[in-house]
Amino acid sequence: MTDGAASAPAFVAVDWGTSSFRLWLIAGDGGVLGESRGGEGMMHCSTAGFEPVLERHLAVVNAPSWLPVMICGMAGARQGWIEAPYLDVPTALDALPRAAVAVPHDGRDIRILPGLCQRDPHAPNVMRGEETQLLGLRPQARGHRLVCMPGTHSKWVTLEDDKVVSFQSYMTGELYAVLTRHAVLRHAVVPDSRTVADDPVFLGAFESAYAEPARVWARLFEPRPAQLLGLEETKDGAAHLSGLLIGAEIGAASMRSSQRGITLVGSGQLGRLYAAALERAGFELVLADAEQVTRDGLVHAAGQIWGTNNG
Amino acid sequence: MTDGAASAPAFVAVDWGTSSFRLWLIAGDGGVLGESRGGEGMMHCSTAGFEPVLERHLAVVNAPSWLPVMICGMAGARQGWIEAPYLDVPTALDALPRAAVAVPHDGRDIRILPGLCQRDPHAPNVMRGEETQLLGLRPQARGHRLVCMPGTHSKWVTLEDDKVVSFQSYMTGELYAVLTRHAVLRHAVVPDSRTVADDPVFLGAFESAYAEPARVWARLFEPRPAQLLGLEETKDGAAHLSGLLIGAEIGAASMRSSQRGITLVGSGQLGRLYAAALERAGFELVLADAEQVTRDGLVHAAGQIWGTNNG
Repeated sequence: MTDGAASAPAFVAVDWGTSSFRLWLIAGDGGVLGESRGGEGMMHCSTAGFEPVLERHLAVVNAPSWLPVMICGMAGARQGWIEAPYLDVPTALDALPRAAVAVPHDGRDIRILPGLCQRDPHAPNVMRGEETQLLGLRPQARGHRLVCMPGTHSKWVTLEDDKVVSFQSYMTGELYAVLTRHAVLRHAVVPDSRTVADDPVFLGAFESAYAEPARVWARLFEPRPAQLLGLEETKDGAAHLSGLLIGAEIGAASMRSSQRGITLVGSGQLGRLYAAALERAGFELVLADAEQVTRDGLVHAAGQIWGTNNG
Repeated sequence: MTDGAASAPAFVAVDWGTSSFRLWLIAGDGGVLGESRGGEGMMHCSTAGFEPVLERHLAVVNAPSWLPVMICGMAGARQGWIEAPYLDVPTALDALPRAAVAVPHDGRDIRILPGLCQRDPHAPNVMRGEETQLLGLRPQARGHRLVCMPGTHSKWVTLEDDKVVSFQSYMTGELYAVLTRHAVLRHAVVPDSRTVADDPVFLGAFESAYAEPARVWARLFEPRPAQLLGLEETKDGAAHLSGLLIGAEIGAASMRSSQRGITLVGSGQLGRLYAAALERAGFELVLADAEQVTRDGLVHAAGQIWGTNNG
């Protein structure tokens, strides 16, 4: 492969979420040549259509008309562009590119990566998007690994070498959102509060919740009476509730495994909160940037299918 | 007291909630002579005013202008008609009538009962309305007792004779409401579903959640993937989620106490669900009707203050 080929556009990578769209023009060496972002996630496109949105963003990065496109995320859901059926766990991560579904299209090779599912009646679960991040993590380590992927529905994944063994979902992000928007706790949290990772209110709530995750069912209400009784200021409500919910998640997840090494796939402020919390809980962290590993996963998948890079 | 006096109107009892209003015309012997209900709870009255609402309902039952009125609930909140400051626990229940706050009024004696608060920085809590139900339970038993009061914010109360020792709040009802209206689980629950107490889906989810309440943090999401994977029908989503949330509540509450005798203050379908669940969990139940004990509490308070009955 010449240097010219290495830096020429090789394919387009797309992370198509529920409410977001991110596209990168990727070179033969995996480098990013251009990007385009928007709010046209699955929810938008289910009615407005998927192809026009993709075409608009392809035009932004001047993608040649022959360039293939590798997509992960909700575009592959049943309500998405075309369904890319879940792969069952346990599964090797390399099975993901092989199971990518081709979108019927005039002239361009467009593939959508499948999600993963756990068809266990006692622990049913699904993911779409995170599996590509796991694929992106692939080269980082071997053996038995735990991966924490915080978000609207946080995922905790157990890997064995290249194999996804099992995973759990915690509705932490969505619980925070609905409780602070629609429940009585809306009076106890300043809208759009940003909790910082060294906030003693956050860390205090986290530690006690982590120690007794079952008790948090009796504690979610806490910020409201604490403030009514003058024991807490409204400005501390967000940190208090974040600490309780993240403590419940990490506490409950810790009960399932004695593994203390963990890869945290995070970004921004939420990533910093989880990093601080996991360190308090005694985990040894490997940090991975969420967007980077998504792109790495798409690059790896493209390499497997089109040989566009070294994967 | 003559029979005539016993059956003549002695006072008016009012349960003024956040979003509901219930008024009863009570005789000297505690019997109900008339009632009037409406949706004019505190939220409505904070802007529309409290007195006109009370007057309208007093007119419905033809309450004589000299008849005193005993009120419990959110009318005594800071955002209510007039604040009836919380009594701190531990407290004797008989302190409640003594702490009732008189509403300044031309010609009628109107009192609002206080709520209870737990000013413990590690377990802050408040209640308004349930304290009157505890007062209504008063004659039923002595000694150490546990009381479960399910609802939007379920309360679990520890009593020692006539003394409220401590209490916890579980946001079970509100969690169910916000998750099924505003979170991804709205796709997994048929709106306005009514779960019945012998539904095997409810009981199955309850038992496993009760056994491991911490694990429910990883299971709230469950109905959604179970249905996406064809392992559950949408019609079962409500029973599944109810079982998980009520199991988490009763499981977490059970970890705090080895007490197996419990008084359940419930009503309607929710009361039946809790009764079935508590029995599955091995509790010995004493059932109390929520509305009856509210009225009994108001009657007892009126008796203490005005000597209108035998309390």
